[in-house]
Amino acid sequence: MEFPEDIEQRSIRTIRALALDQVQAARSGHVGFPLGAAPLIHTVYAHYLRSDPTAPEWLNRDRFVLSAGHGSAMLYATLHLAGYAVSTDDLRAFRQWGSITPGHPEHGPTPGVDATTGPLGQGIANAVGMAIAERMTGARLTAADGPLLDHRTFVLASDGDFMEGIALEAVAFAGLHRLGKLVVLYDDNDIVIDGRASHVHDAAAVARAAEAHGWHTVEVADGDDLPALRAALDAAVAETERPSLVRVRTVIGRTSPLADDPRAHSGALSEADDAATRAALGPDHAEPFHVPEDVAAWWGRFAERGGDARAEWLRRMAADDPAIATFHEWVAGGADPGIDVREFEGATEAARMTSGKVMARLAETMPTLVGGAADLVAATMADLPNGGTFSPDEPAGRNISFGVREHAMGAIVNGIALHGVLRPFASTFLVFTTYQANALRMAALQELPVIHVLSHDSITVGEDGPTHQPVEMLSTLRATPNTVVLRPGDAREAAECWQDALARTDGPSILVLSRSPLEPADRSDSWGETRKGAYIVSGTTTADLVLVASGSELAPAHSAAELLRAEGLRVRVVSAPSHELFFAQPDEYRDTVLPPETPRLVIEASHPLSLWRLAGPLGDVVGVDRFGASAPPERMLAEYGFTPDQIAARGRAHLARLADRGQGAPVAEPVA
Amino acid sequence: MEFPEDIEQRSIRTIRALALDQVQAARSGHVGFPLGAAPLIHTVYAHYLRSDPTAPEWLNRDRFVLSAGHGSAMLYATLHLAGYAVSTDDLRAFRQWGSITPGHPEHGPTPGVDATTGPLGQGIANAVGMAIAERMTGARLTAADGPLLDHRTFVLASDGDFMEGIALEAVAFAGLHRLGKLVVLYDDNDIVIDGRASHVHDAAAVARAAEAHGWHTVEVADGDDLPALRAALDAAVAETERPSLVRVRTVIGRTSPLADDPRAHSGALSEADDAATRAALGPDHAEPFHVPEDVAAWWGRFAERGGDARAEWLRRMAADDPAIATFHEWVAGGADPGIDVREFEGATEAARMTSGKVMARLAETMPTLVGGAADLVAATMADLPNGGTFSPDEPAGRNISFGVREHAMGAIVNGIALHGVLRPFASTFLVFTTYQANALRMAALQELPVIHVLSHDSITVGEDGPTHQPVEMLSTLRATPNTVVLRPGDAREAAECWQDALARTDGPSILVLSRSPLEPADRSDSWGETRKGAYIVSGTTTADLVLVASGSELAPAHSAAELLRAEGLRVRVVSAPSHELFFAQPDEYRDTVLPPETPRLVIEASHPLSLWRLAGPLGDVVGVDRFGASAPPERMLAEYGFTPDQIAARGRAHLARLADRGQGAPVAEPVA
Repeated sequence: MEFPEDIEQRSIRTIRALALDQVQAARSGHVGFPLGAAPLIHTVYAHYLRSDPTAPEWLNRDRFVLSAGHGSAMLYATLHLAGYAVSTDDLRAFRQWGSITPGHPEHGPTPGVDATTGPLGQGIANAVGMAIAERMTGARLTAADGPLLDHRTFVLASDGDFMEGIALEAVAFAGLHRLGKLVVLYDDNDIVIDGRASHVHDAAAVARAAEAHGWHTVEVADGDDLPALRAALDAAVAETERPSLVRVRTVIGRTSPLADDPRAHSGALSEADDAATRAALGPDHAEPFHVPEDVAAWWGRFAERGGDARAEWLRRMAADDPAIATFHEWVAGGADPGIDVREFEGATEAARMTSGKVMARLAETMPTLVGGAADLVAATMADLPNGGTFSPDEPAGRNISFGVREHAMGAIVNGIALHGVLRPFASTFLVFTTYQANALRMAALQELPVIHVLSHDSITVGEDGPTHQPVEMLSTLRATPNTVVLRPGDAREAAECWQDALARTDGPSILVLSRSPLEPADRSDSWGETRKGAYIVSGTTTADLVLVASGSELAPAHSAAELLRAEGLRVRVVSAPSHELFFAQPDEYRDTVLPPETPRLVIEASHPLSLWRLAGPLGDVVGVDRFGASAPPERMLAEYGFTPDQIAARGRAHLARLADRGQGAPVAEPVA
Repeated sequence: MEFPEDIEQRSIRTIRALALDQVQAARSGHVGFPLGAAPLIHTVYAHYLRSDPTAPEWLNRDRFVLSAGHGSAMLYATLHLAGYAVSTDDLRAFRQWGSITPGHPEHGPTPGVDATTGPLGQGIANAVGMAIAERMTGARLTAADGPLLDHRTFVLASDGDFMEGIALEAVAFAGLHRLGKLVVLYDDNDIVIDGRASHVHDAAAVARAAEAHGWHTVEVADGDDLPALRAALDAAVAETERPSLVRVRTVIGRTSPLADDPRAHSGALSEADDAATRAALGPDHAEPFHVPEDVAAWWGRFAERGGDARAEWLRRMAADDPAIATFHEWVAGGADPGIDVREFEGATEAARMTSGKVMARLAETMPTLVGGAADLVAATMADLPNGGTFSPDEPAGRNISFGVREHAMGAIVNGIALHGVLRPFASTFLVFTTYQANALRMAALQELPVIHVLSHDSITVGEDGPTHQPVEMLSTLRATPNTVVLRPGDAREAAECWQDALARTDGPSILVLSRSPLEPADRSDSWGETRKGAYIVSGTTTADLVLVASGSELAPAHSAAELLRAEGLRVRVVSAPSHELFFAQPDEYRDTVLPPETPRLVIEASHPLSLWRLAGPLGDVVGVDRFGASAPPERMLAEYGFTPDQIAARGRAHLARLADRGQGAPVAEPVA
C-alpha cells in the first residue's frame, strides 16, 4: 500500500482525535496532555518500540510505561492503532464500569499496558525496576548467541512526575547504575493543574540534575517537529552507557482553543472547543472514533516488526542451551524453595535473624529471588549470601543496594515484578513504610507478588525512640486490600511465614519481624500452622479465656496464660500471625480457633484499631494507642503494659467486666 | 579569661568525648557521625548561631535542625556546652526512659532542639518551612526599623538525608524560592550503614543538582580544617540570594580506631576502641562526662551573643508600632476566626466547596493562616483569596504553591508550625497521604497544629479509578496517635469541622472532604455538633437500630433509615465525623448517642478496619474492603453497596442475624 507523505501527521492527528473522543464521550478525563504529547507516543510506538500486539506479555518485548497516567486516553488510542486488543468499543467505554479503558492505565485488564500508573513518579521508578530486571536476567542467562533478554524500557513522563521525590530518587539510582537501555521522554509542557509549571518547577534544572547524576540528556524544542524527535530518540537508543532523558517542549491542548492553558489539563472540552478542535484536526475526525483507513494500514508495521522480533526470539529460545532451560524453569516458577521449618523449631532468636537464615537458604534454592534493602541490610538481615551485588560491573548481582531511597525501592521492586521473570523483595524498618506507602499500595493494586521484609516492628525497637517505633503501620497494611501481613511469633513461625509469602502469587506479602529475640512457642498442644493465619498454640481444652497474640507478644501472652492457669482459669493461647489469612478461612475453622462465645483478649504491640475485629463481641485488646518512647526494650514493654503480669491483670479485669454483664461462657474441645 | 590558642580544638574534642560518653553509657546510639561532624556543629554554634540558651523558644532566634537525627549525642553535647538546660545528668541519661536526651532529638522535652528528627530528609524540609515562615512573617510585619523577624536557619544533614526524595523535593523548592537565609551543612563522610556511600550515592552530583536548582554551593575538603570551615560558612551567610549548601568532607568515627569504617555508624564502641578513642582525645577526657573548665568558660560567648541579640530585639519590640502590635496579636493567637456555621445550614454542596468558602472567610479573619496545595488548588479549593502567592517577588504571599511535592509539603508545613508564629495548612487528595505519610506522623509526634485539607475522600472519586480512590487512608490516620480526623457529612458540618480543626493546638487535624455534593442532613432531632465527634441527627426516640455514618454516607444512611422506619422499625441516625473526638467524650455521652445494647450499623466508604470499634459488640459495618474502580460516582456507590436500599437491606439482615442469637434490644430516650 502506498501511503501519503503526511501519513505520520495523519496518525498523530488520529491519536489526538481518539483521545479527545474518549474524554468527550466520558465527559471526564484529561485531553490536554494527549493533544500535546501525541507526537511523542506516536514516534516511540511507530519507530522504536519492539512489541508484539498479539502477545502483549512477551517477556523480551520493549516495555512502555506512561508514568503520567492521566494521559491514558492517548495510550489507549495508540494501543488501538498498534493492533492490541483495544477496540473502538473499548475506547467508547473510556472510564466506565467494567471497561478495559479505566481512568488511569491498569496493568492486567488492558493488553499492552505494562504498569498501572497515575500516582506521579511511580512509573519512572517502575521502569528503573524493569531495566534492572532486563539487565540482571540477561547477564545471568546468556546463551551461546547472547543474553536471553535484551530489550529497552521507555517511559513517557510529565512535569508532575519530575517534581515527586520518588522520581528524583529513581533518577539518582538509574544514573548510578548506568541503565543505558532506559529512555525517558519528558513531556515538558510548562503547565500544571494550578497554572504555569515554571512557577513551581524548573524543568531545565531537572535535566541538568539528571546529567549530574550520569544521565545522557537530549532536548527537543518542539514536540511537533518529527525529524527532531526522531533524531533525539535515535541518540537516546544509540546511547548504551547512560540512561537517556529526552526533554521535549510541547504545548498542552495543542490544536484546541485551550492550547497552552491550564484549563486544558482536566475535564472534557466545551461543545464549542470540541468543534474547533475537530475542525483543526481535519475532516477525517469530524465524527468521533474514526480511524482513517490508510492510518490503520500504516500501523500494520508495528505488529509486523514486533511479530518478527518475537518469532526470532522464539526461534532462539528453541535451542538446546542450559541458559534457556534455566530460563524456562524460572518462568514456570513453583520450584520448592526447600525451607524445612522444623530446623527452626526451638530456636530463641529475633525474627529478623531467622528471616536472614531462611534467605540464606533461598539464595541457593530460589534463583529468581532478588532484591535488597534501603541501607539497612545490617539490621534487617535481608541478604542473599554469595548472590553478588548488582552494579554496572556486576550486572548479575542479585542483591540490590537501594541506598536510603525507600519510595523508589518500593516502586523499583514493583517494576521488577511487573517485568515478569524475577521474584523481588525489599527491606527496611517497618516504620519506614511511611516513606513508600504509595508503592506498597500499587503492589497490592497490581497484584504483584513482591515480598517486603520489614524488621524493627514495634515499641521494642527501644532506644531509637518514637521516630523509629511503628504504631499505626499494621493498621495501614491490614487496611490495604490484597495485602497479606505476616507477623511471626517465633523462629519456626518466621520460617513458615516466609513459606506463606513465597506461596502467594497475586499480591504483596509483608513480613513483619522483631528486632529482639523471640522465645520459641510451647507447641505441646499446637495443631495448626501460619498458613491459616491463626491457630491454637496451647490450651485446646475448654477455655474461659482466649489470649490471641502475634510476634513478640506471643511469649508474654503464653506466660500470662500460665499465671492465669495457676489461678484455675482455663486459658487458650492462639497465635495470630496473619489476620488476612485467618479471615479467609472457613467459618468453621475460625469458630473453632476463636469460639464466638468465649471471651478473648487480643495482645499486640500495635495500634488497637486493627485488633477489634479479631477481638469480636466478647473481646478486649491490649495495644499501643500512643507514640513510643526512647528506652531499653524491656522498659518499654513494662511502661506500655506488655509484661505477663500486666497481660494477666488485663485478662482478669476483662472477665470480671463481662461477668458483671452476665457474659462469658466456656466452650467445648475443638475439633481436631 | 585568657583562652589557650587551641581552645576551639579543645571544644571540638569535648563534643566528641561527650558524644562518646553518652553512647557508651547507654550502650546504644550512634557515635561515628558525632566523632566526624563535631567540628561542624561546634563551628555553627560557636560562631554563627544566634540564640539565647535561657530563652530557647525566642521567636527571632536562628534555627538549627539536625536533620540526621541519629547524631543526637553530638547535639546534646553542644547544647550542654552552649548553656542550654541540658545537664551532665541529662547526658548520662541518654536514651533512657523519661530523659530529655532521647535516641533521636525531640522538639519539646529538650531545650534548644528546634525539630524532632530521625526519619531522614524530614529535617531539611522542616528547615525550608522555617525559612519560609521567617521570610513571610518578616515581609508581612515590618516596623519602622525593619522586619520584625530576621534570622537564619541552619541544617546539618548527612548522605542519607540527600538520598531521600523528600530532601530532593525540598532542595528544588528552596532553590526556586531563593531562600537565602537557609544554610545546609552536608556532612559527607562517604559511609552509610551498609558500607561506602559512594557505592549507592553520588555526593558531588547532589551538590551539582542543588546548583542546577539555584543553590549556592561551597566545598570543604576536610571537616577538621577550621579555617576552611569558617571561610565556607562566612561565604554561606554572606550569600543572601540563594540557599547555601556547604558540603564538608568528614571522616566517620574520626579519632577512634573505627575511623572511615561503616562499623562506626551504630552501637557503642568496644572497651578497647573506647579506650583508644579516649587516649586520642587527650587526658581531659580520660574520665567520662568531663568538660574542661576553660572550654566551659569559652562557651560563655554563645549565651552572651544570643542574650545581647535577644535584648536588642526585645527593645525593638517595645516600640509603639502597628506591626509590633499585630505581631503580638498573632503570637497570642486565639482570635475568633469568625466562622458562622449557620450560614452553611441547608446548602447542598461538596465538602471541598464549603471548605473553600470557609477558607475565604478565614483569609480575612485569621491572618496567621498560611499554606497551600500540592498542585491541586483547583480541585481541593484550599486557597486564601487575595492572600497573594509566596514567591521571591512576593514574600508576603500567604498561599504557597508547593508543586507536586506532597512529602516536602507535609514537612514544610511542619517547619512553619515549629517556627511558632504562623498556622499552616496543606492540601492534596486523601489518597496522596501515601506520599507524605511520614510527615503526617511527624506532625502528630511533635504535636503540631497543622491542618490538612484532603479532598476526594473515597470511591466516589469516580472515573479517576482505583489509583485515586482512598480505601485504607482513614484507617492509617485513625491509627496514628494524636491525630484528629474530621469527615463532615454536610455543609454545616464542614464548617463546624473547620472550627474543630482551628480549636486544636496540640496536634494535626485532618479534614477529609468529599469531591461530590453532600445533601444537608435533616437536623429536626439534632442535638449535637461535630466537636463531640458523633451525635444524633435524627431518631432521638427509642431505637431498634442505630445507623452511624460519616461524610457522603450520611445522606444515604438517612434515606435508608426512612425506608426502615416505613417498615415500622425505630431507627436512629448518628453522624460520626470524628472517632477521636467521640472516644474522648465521657462514657455517659457515648452511651447516650450509641446505647451499648442497641444494634448498630456503621456505614462509611472506607476500609472496615477502622469501623469495628465504633460498631461495638452488637454492630456490623458497611465499608470498602477492596480497591475501587473507574466508573461514575453513582455507579461506584451502587456497585459497592452504598445505596439507601442496599444499606437498608444490610440493616434488616443484621437485625435478623442478631435476633437469631437472641440479641438486640431497644433503648429508652436519650438524655437531652
